Amino acid sequence: MADETRAHEVSATHQNNESQANQPQVDATRHPEGATKDAPSSLRADVEAINKLERHLYAHRYAEKSSETYGMTIDPPKATADRGEALAILCEEDHDLLCSSRMGTTLNRLTANASQLDPITRAQVRVLKRSYDAQVNVDPNDDASLTRLLTESDGVWRRAKLSNDWASFEPYLDRIVTLMRRIAHERDPRRDAYDVWLDEYEPGSSCEFYDDFFAQVKDAVVPLLMDVRTKRAPSRACIEGRFDPNRQWLLAKDIAQLEGVDMDAYWLTATEHPFSEALTTHYAITAAHVHENDVMSNVFTMLHEGGHNLYEQGVNPAFNYTSLSGGSSAGMHEGQSRFFENYVGRDRAFAPTLLALLQRHFRGQMNRTTPQQLYLAVNRVEPQPLRMEADELTYPLHILVRYEIERMLFSGEATAKDVPGLWSQKYKSYLGVLVPDDTHGALQDSHWADGLMGYFPGYALGGAYGAQLRDQMIADGLDWEGTLSSGDLAPIRDWLRDRIWQYGRSKDPAELIWSACHEHFDATHYTNYLQQKFSKLYNL
Amino acid sequence: MADETRAHEVSATHQNNESQANQPQVDATRHPEGATKDAPSSLRADVEAINKLERHLYAHRYAEKSSETYGMTIDPPKATADRGEALAILCEEDHDLLCSSRMGTTLNRLTANASQLDPITRAQVRVLKRSYDAQVNVDPNDDASLTRLLTESDGVWRRAKLSNDWASFEPYLDRIVTLMRRIAHERDPRRDAYDVWLDEYEPGSSCEFYDDFFAQVKDAVVPLLMDVRTKRAPSRACIEGRFDPNRQWLLAKDIAQLEGVDMDAYWLTATEHPFSEALTTHYAITAAHVHENDVMSNVFTMLHEGGHNLYEQGVNPAFNYTSLSGGSSAGMHEGQSRFFENYVGRDRAFAPTLLALLQRHFRGQMNRTTPQQLYLAVNRVEPQPLRMEADELTYPLHILVRYEIERMLFSGEATAKDVPGLWSQKYKSYLGVLVPDDTHGALQDSHWADGLMGYFPGYALGGAYGAQLRDQMIADGLDWEGTLSSGDLAPIRDWLRDRIWQYGRSKDPAELIWSACHEHFDATHYTNYLQQKFSKLYNL
Repeated sequence: MADETRAHEVSATHQNNESQANQPQVDATRHPEGATKDAPSSLRADVEAINKLERHLYAHRYAEKSSETYGMTIDPPKATADRGEALAILCEEDHDLLCSSRMGTTLNRLTANASQLDPITRAQVRVLKRSYDAQVNVDPNDDASLTRLLTESDGVWRRAKLSNDWASFEPYLDRIVTLMRRIAHERDPRRDAYDVWLDEYEPGSSCEFYDDFFAQVKDAVVPLLMDVRTKRAPSRACIEGRFDPNRQWLLAKDIAQLEGVDMDAYWLTATEHPFSEALTTHYAITAAHVHENDVMSNVFTMLHEGGHNLYEQGVNPAFNYTSLSGGSSAGMHEGQSRFFENYVGRDRAFAPTLLALLQRHFRGQMNRTTPQQLYLAVNRVEPQPLRMEADELTYPLHILVRYEIERMLFSGEATAKDVPGLWSQKYKSYLGVLVPDDTHGALQDSHWADGLMGYFPGYALGGAYGAQLRDQMIADGLDWEGTLSSGDLAPIRDWLRDRIWQYGRSKDPAELIWSACHEHFDATHYTNYLQQKFSKLYNL
Repeated sequence: MADETRAHEVSATHQNNESQANQPQVDATRHPEGATKDAPSSLRADVEAINKLERHLYAHRYAEKSSETYGMTIDPPKATADRGEALAILCEEDHDLLCSSRMGTTLNRLTANASQLDPITRAQVRVLKRSYDAQVNVDPNDDASLTRLLTESDGVWRRAKLSNDWASFEPYLDRIVTLMRRIAHERDPRRDAYDVWLDEYEPGSSCEFYDDFFAQVKDAVVPLLMDVRTKRAPSRACIEGRFDPNRQWLLAKDIAQLEGVDMDAYWLTATEHPFSEALTTHYAITAAHVHENDVMSNVFTMLHEGGHNLYEQGVNPAFNYTSLSGGSSAGMHEGQSRFFENYVGRDRAFAPTLLALLQRHFRGQMNRTTPQQLYLAVNRVEPQPLRMEADELTYPLHILVRYEIERMLFSGEATAKDVPGLWSQKYKSYLGVLVPDDTHGALQDSHWADGLMGYFPGYALGGAYGAQLRDQMIADGLDWEGTLSSGDLAPIRDWLRDRIWQYGRSKDPAELIWSACHEHFDATHYTNYLQQKFSKLYNL
């Protein structure tokens, strides 16, 4: 994110940030009119028009997100097509609302007069203008077709995964790529199609940016992994066994609560592939799964999704009915989830708290386990085929595989039928792992079936954001070990809320890193962290 | 429904019905253009305009119904206001979509040229025009305010019921009545406000209609009840005891399946006050509850809600994305649910099937029960304060209480603070029952909190519709006892699907009764049924 193209925006933000020095609460800077008092009345009418637009977009977002969430959790199989149709129509309406020529004129005028707007309205105009520019030239029929296709393909993927049947999903993946390529071209014919989608999920990013990032990560992780594999791996015996699923669901709830999720603004449910969502700051959702023979999968899924939930609940509630609601980007979101999953959940200082919780739910099963044994077990480096079960060190390599395959699909170097072969080859080469079948290979994740092409790289980037935030937190004087040992994570939540969460989408990721850490994004925080942690753990 | 004001419509329908004699499947009568071939092109453009409108209304209905359903089942407490806001905005959009002056002109033109339309399009125009007329003069702000108010009041009622706290719900009820009275006046300033809402739920009904109906019911039920109470009541011992809630949920699913609900187009969930909903024919929902000490409450709730589900799943799927989707009226809907709850579920011939199902789920608990004992137990006449637990005979008196109180609230004869007193007094006078508290009194039902004022009378009317349909079914040669004894209800479902369900809203209730039974609605089928059943049961 420290690439050249971002320089202007970052410095502009820096000024912004300084001018807000005495106004830490974002909403405090908002005028009721949205425009400064001496702004002309025409400008106020423009602000009124976008505020009206925001209300409609909110209602649609609420309807769309809830339908999608319920679709992935509780809706019966026969409901799929009807839901797809409803979503496609709502999606057409979104396009009509945002992309009218009148709204284009309004947004252009507001952009030209941005200096006369209060900071929040200015941020709204920036985000809305970006959506407008992205969507105005997209054929609404293509968007609606994609919505219908994705609604259908999620079910197809679900069944394909259960029956290890790549062939049934294959044509859907090809159709998704073709349609997303076409839409990317309509969005910006001058840009590479995959770049368009990377930028959609991570504003300011591109293949160039991620190539640099992954090169840096690979340079650190691959030799480290080779060194680690010369050593004896710690035992996982203490976390193995059978754990009653009903108790695991109670444990899941307790983990969310321990993490600090507001349980009165939260729904925990079950699904095949865990995910989180939020309708507003008052309604965060986690869909999780439990496996009888793997309690730690539950623990780390909950810590991960809980990080997403905390981010969404921590956004300024004044943003709820506006386009500034929700997290800044995919990477920043994963930055929060992987923060709680790894930097908190896999830290030695947190092990006693975690162990006590496990022992409370599974009396007798972990009585003789020590915090140190638990710590070692959950940090055992072990290349294996599943991203969701990966240790912290090999994790970014799982992402790299997906990033490279997505690139090939978008460039036309590969089509869906090539994916299982590419998958096996890359897992062999980067991780030394044999992929047993497609269920544990290219069908393991729901992302492609849900149209989230370009989303994966954000997981690795999120790990790097999190490492940089953690270093800054400690530099600011937060007692890291003390906080984790106490089991009360409030100081960490407070810091993240103050520097990241509250801003929602009013700041782009690069701005957030700059304002939180007083420096540009730098992946060496991440690579240093991995080197230090695993060198110590494996006595390298 | 046999009142004077309906005469014209019924005879018009009769012609319709005859002209469709060779076209039993409604969708077979539909031209792709919606207008007959020789219709002018302007008419075709009008049809295209309403088809476009229908798509948008469908997407909104899908969003609104799902949000409301999830709101009453799984949404966390803090999400209420945000959901209300989203629903209020969608509701404004509905108004804008339907009530534009252009749409008014289109609907008027289509109504004037109805004879040139195919029967389905003609029905769509009729239903849309009725909605248009009802809503065009309503201030959209009032509608949105009501949506917000109801979203909030549902939660208030829920807490009030749990804590027996009428006072906290009281101001909400007053506000709901005031707002609904205002909206009724906007809809039709010449009509009585309560009549407007009765007509909304039961097209063609009014206080005059219900006064006649309830007088007839009261004349039959009150003396019958007096006679019954001179006799010894049968024992309920065989259905008493504690029944494991988890097993009860499995039983609930089996009842829906036995009844014939399509389980691939169905979601069963839990709530405080049971209800059913449907998003399309492919997605029917039942929200039920189980009480550890009352397994028959579960059984009859499931039979009841399953009747609603069957109706919704049985509508012509071609109506899904149109205003003809869903049931014809509240009364006709309750006609189906109470059909399965009472005419099937409480029949002697069905007792062996029901008993076998109970014995399968609760081994040991009902081993010595006979079908006859079960039949007598579930038909024990016992005035008590809860509508949902009422026997078949006293049930309409519970409805009468609500009808009379709603009328007084709308006429201004009473306000919310008078309700608990009126409730006690009327329960004493009609049922001879002492109401122990508001939780078991005026707070027992969710309807008022959800704005369903004018809905209750449909429950009693539904019982009467069902009795008439049952008599016709038998007159048509359906082997009633044989079907119920076999446990395979397909012949009953087929008859109801053929005569009622498939038509959705394309026929009004009076038309449906006329075409299904070849006579006008007549409540004596209901009163005769009650007299015969309970005279025999109690040896009167």
